[in-house]
Amino acid sequence: MNLKLIGQDVIASVLKMPRAIELMREAYAELSAGSVDSPLRTALVNEVGTVLYKPAYSKAAEILCVKVISVFPGNAEKGLPVIPGVIVVNSAETGMPVAILEAGYLTSLRTGAATGLATDLFAKKEAKVAALFGTGGQSRHQLEAMLCARDFETVYVFSRNAENAERFCRENADIARGCQLVPNAERTVLKLCDVITTATTSAVALFEWDEVADDVHVNAIGALGPMRTELTAETLLQSAVVVDDREACLREAGEICLMRQAGLVGDDYYPAEIGELLDGPDLQGVPTVFRSVGNAAQDLLCSAEILRITEAQNLGVIAQF
Amino acid sequence: MNLKLIGQDVIASVLKMPRAIELMREAYAELSAGSVDSPLRTALVNEVGTVLYKPAYSKAAEILCVKVISVFPGNAEKGLPVIPGVIVVNSAETGMPVAILEAGYLTSLRTGAATGLATDLFAKKEAKVAALFGTGGQSRHQLEAMLCARDFETVYVFSRNAENAERFCRENADIARGCQLVPNAERTVLKLCDVITTATTSAVALFEWDEVADDVHVNAIGALGPMRTELTAETLLQSAVVVDDREACLREAGEICLMRQAGLVGDDYYPAEIGELLDGPDLQGVPTVFRSVGNAAQDLLCSAEILRITEAQNLGVIAQF
Repeated sequence: MNLKLIGQDVIASVLKMPRAIELMREAYAELSAGSVDSPLRTALVNEVGTVLYKPAYSKAAEILCVKVISVFPGNAEKGLPVIPGVIVVNSAETGMPVAILEAGYLTSLRTGAATGLATDLFAKKEAKVAALFGTGGQSRHQLEAMLCARDFETVYVFSRNAENAERFCRENADIARGCQLVPNAERTVLKLCDVITTATTSAVALFEWDEVADDVHVNAIGALGPMRTELTAETLLQSAVVVDDREACLREAGEICLMRQAGLVGDDYYPAEIGELLDGPDLQGVPTVFRSVGNAAQDLLCSAEILRITEAQNLGVIAQF
Repeated sequence: MNLKLIGQDVIASVLKMPRAIELMREAYAELSAGSVDSPLRTALVNEVGTVLYKPAYSKAAEILCVKVISVFPGNAEKGLPVIPGVIVVNSAETGMPVAILEAGYLTSLRTGAATGLATDLFAKKEAKVAALFGTGGQSRHQLEAMLCARDFETVYVFSRNAENAERFCRENADIARGCQLVPNAERTVLKLCDVITTATTSAVALFEWDEVADDVHVNAIGALGPMRTELTAETLLQSAVVVDDREACLREAGEICLMRQAGLVGDDYYPAEIGELLDGPDLQGVPTVFRSVGNAAQDLLCSAEILRITEAQNLGVIAQF
């Protein structure tokens, strides 16, 4: 058997954020059009972690893939990645396994790219000030994506741990391109923010609605599961809410689960999908929340692109076994 | 990222049929005891084939795994395997991906081993004559497994294509160990058979109940899906039916689906699982049918064993990417 193995370095060299954002546009268009088959993910759980299996196929991608991604919080103490994984790619023509991609970096990249697309679509054009909550594994790509979408002058970085915010600003100055990264600012700066991105595992809301500007655009990508929440119900109720995958968000986005449980919205709650809003309507000037839980369609389109490029450029390791 | 890659040759060298049969005993015991988590498989389908995703975990195995196995019938014409696949293994302790195993050979081996276990448990002790229907990719291991379970003197080999039966007998003489392989015999020999194994994709039953001995043991491993059937309803109704996985067989075993659709058995039809019968009751002298559709628990326990041995013996390819 021959398999192409594609690691993080190759992925980082062939797929850059601006192109990843374009691919998210395609992925969400396919998802909302129903032309990608991404069945419910399967989870295996033990005492120390969860392994998620997320398969996807679309005719246009010419491949089938499954992301096998683990969430093992205790890995941090062991010096191991908390969210390690691989993507297995099969040919849509022959079903043959053709490649294994390292999945951790790609997950972070495509999750960032989703924020980039949403910011591009929904934040005001003249946005200059942003905030980022969370300085974990996802945050560098979240920052990079925001900076791709708008010419921010200042990004305020918040973390539960002040040192983490300082370290993050220091370590990510290389991608700031003239934008000032400011750690641990007073919370009053939130009123100045045109865009706020949250990438945490918080169990309580990170800010109140009256702390932020009334035309803010929020990207919320963390807080998976009904026991976690990054935003208050009021923030969602005051905003135009856009999700990546309606069915998945109704089930898995903590804020939405809590709002429904509390009876603040009815069973007919029906947020728009980003794939339905790629050519408008114009939400400029209206406060917006983009809430995403991630979909295998994102991994599928990125994997297809990475395979195309690595084949053309003869990159990756061919393993024979 | 480091992954151990384990190909067919290594698997064949470290896991032999007698041990595989022992592992099936463990797998079915775990399955029936509910101590293995093997959720419903997910299928992605396109115009030319299907890719199946079958995850499994048990605490005892110390790994999680998913088999990604394709069924692309048109591959035969292209000189490619019809059922290619890989198994991705993750550590249960850290969630880290640790190995990729070639899955086609292992699937055939463990499916044979299931037949070996069932034959050992349910065929009469003095069984001397067997029949094998089907000479495709699964059949060599089906034959080998039967020969492990009993000292057969004769195995009659049937195929829709007479040449295939001759070729199969010629090519598998190396594992016959003194047993005579007889292709294309008269069908009257079926009355003499103590054991009949069917490994076909037939859409119609391969024999009538009145053609076989009234104490026959039948292993039926083919005919997946409600449109295919290897056995007549009468054969099942006259026999003690044992399945690998009750829920899966009620949904996927062609014969059982047809019996239920035809109203020959009620909604309360409840065949025994092999994992419930490992220490008896004694079904000797009673006609028996073992109907299996395959379960990821089989792949899980085989993968765990292969990993243990390849680690101890330093086998497999370590890929760094």
